[in-house]
Amino acid sequence: MGALHAGHASLIERAVRECPTVVVSIFVNPLQFDRAEDLARYPRPLDADLALCERLGVDVVFAPAPEAMYPQPPQITVDVGHMADHLCGAFRPGHFAGVATVVVKLLNILQPDVAYFGEKDAQQLAIVRRVVADLNLPVVIASVETVREADGLALSSRNQHLSSEERLLAPLLFRALLTVRDEVERGATDAAGAVARATATIPNDPRVRLEYLELVDPASFQPVERIAGPVIAAGALWVAGTRLIDNIRCDGPRTKY
Amino acid sequence: MGALHAGHASLIERAVRECPTVVVSIFVNPLQFDRAEDLARYPRPLDADLALCERLGVDVVFAPAPEAMYPQPPQITVDVGHMADHLCGAFRPGHFAGVATVVVKLLNILQPDVAYFGEKDAQQLAIVRRVVADLNLPVVIASVETVREADGLALSSRNQHLSSEERLLAPLLFRALLTVRDEVERGATDAAGAVARATATIPNDPRVRLEYLELVDPASFQPVERIAGPVIAAGALWVAGTRLIDNIRCDGPRTKY
Repeated sequence: MGALHAGHASLIERAVRECPTVVVSIFVNPLQFDRAEDLARYPRPLDADLALCERLGVDVVFAPAPEAMYPQPPQITVDVGHMADHLCGAFRPGHFAGVATVVVKLLNILQPDVAYFGEKDAQQLAIVRRVVADLNLPVVIASVETVREADGLALSSRNQHLSSEERLLAPLLFRALLTVRDEVERGATDAAGAVARATATIPNDPRVRLEYLELVDPASFQPVERIAGPVIAAGALWVAGTRLIDNIRCDGPRTKY
Repeated sequence: MGALHAGHASLIERAVRECPTVVVSIFVNPLQFDRAEDLARYPRPLDADLALCERLGVDVVFAPAPEAMYPQPPQITVDVGHMADHLCGAFRPGHFAGVATVVVKLLNILQPDVAYFGEKDAQQLAIVRRVVADLNLPVVIASVETVREADGLALSSRNQHLSSEERLLAPLLFRALLTVRDEVERGATDAAGAVARATATIPNDPRVRLEYLELVDPASFQPVERIAGPVIAAGALWVAGTRLIDNIRCDGPRTKY
């Protein structure tokens, strides 16, 4: 969706290392926005994005107009089933159907051998992997680790909406996720308990509101009640008018040597 | 779906004429059957199908097992929106989502340049065309005219379920559709009136039941109330336990010379 930051750059750098030809798609997809004001204020600094792509050695930037992608109102969309029942899917109706639909369109238009996605959008990544598997799309999905600021905040195009005061509150989400991971590493098996202890780290401040914090199975993205293997802890935090998401993989109890 | 007849043969013959390599897919797709008994009794004469394909010069027959096409319960499917609100879609919930999903899978697996579909399944053809347009699938859809018996009955794998007595009733559907076309050629503009006159040609016989007979726009497959251009008349007729479908294009009033 453009507004490229160091997280995107790490995707692009890996693609440039691994592939003879690299195409970057930049498209703020109306179909995946559940709130009109979010679509309207989503940043679109195309010139800066093009300059970054050129600097990184990208061969082609595909930045279509909305009318080129949707010449008529879409009748046919991708139904993501139960993969959207939880986490962001539960709070953003239609969002992942919109994401899956535009990803299928972009993959069909560009026909890449490998497509790179960031792990920050963990539910999106899991859904894209399932789209590729269930619809037999001829592409390999590669994922790239989340890039973070020094204080742990995951890079996101939405971070630029934060005032300097709000910016100080933004790492609360990552710290809550670290608390879950600590619990899991210490051998916690009750997901609700671990989540409650993590939630308690979010201060009672009118500027922050935790939308969700859940433990899910890494493949199915269905909620986990009893922790018995690797899980993904994922959360969404509103900081004033900006919604931030993040996630962290919890591999289980740490072996003591 | 196999059980190949002269209608399929005409699709294959055209593909063989037009393409250097021809692949036929044969797959009785569980996802598109709304009634378990219809799936169970759908004919699967694979040896005869393979022999016909070989005789016609087909290069590859792709006849996967259901477990190969659906190694896990599908989470991701294709949503066909309002294209399934009418005609068969209204009577077979989930049918066209199942068709669209398996067509996308087959196209992604086989990656043909051109895919051939029969005009007998008119709503399916319109939906497949819209799937290709809306999801930007890199394929050309070609359609081939319905092949009919001498008495007008459209060839269908389901015709073999008809007893010889039921077979005599089966052309009633085509005759009703011809009545609609006559009405349109004579300048009728009221769809409901034309449909009523066609419906009246179906005798009051306990062995036959007209499920629907509608006039729709050829592209959108939305119902037409006032006839002002080409329309498709489509119907479904139950003959005893067998459901037959057919359709006919009505181009409008015939010019008198």
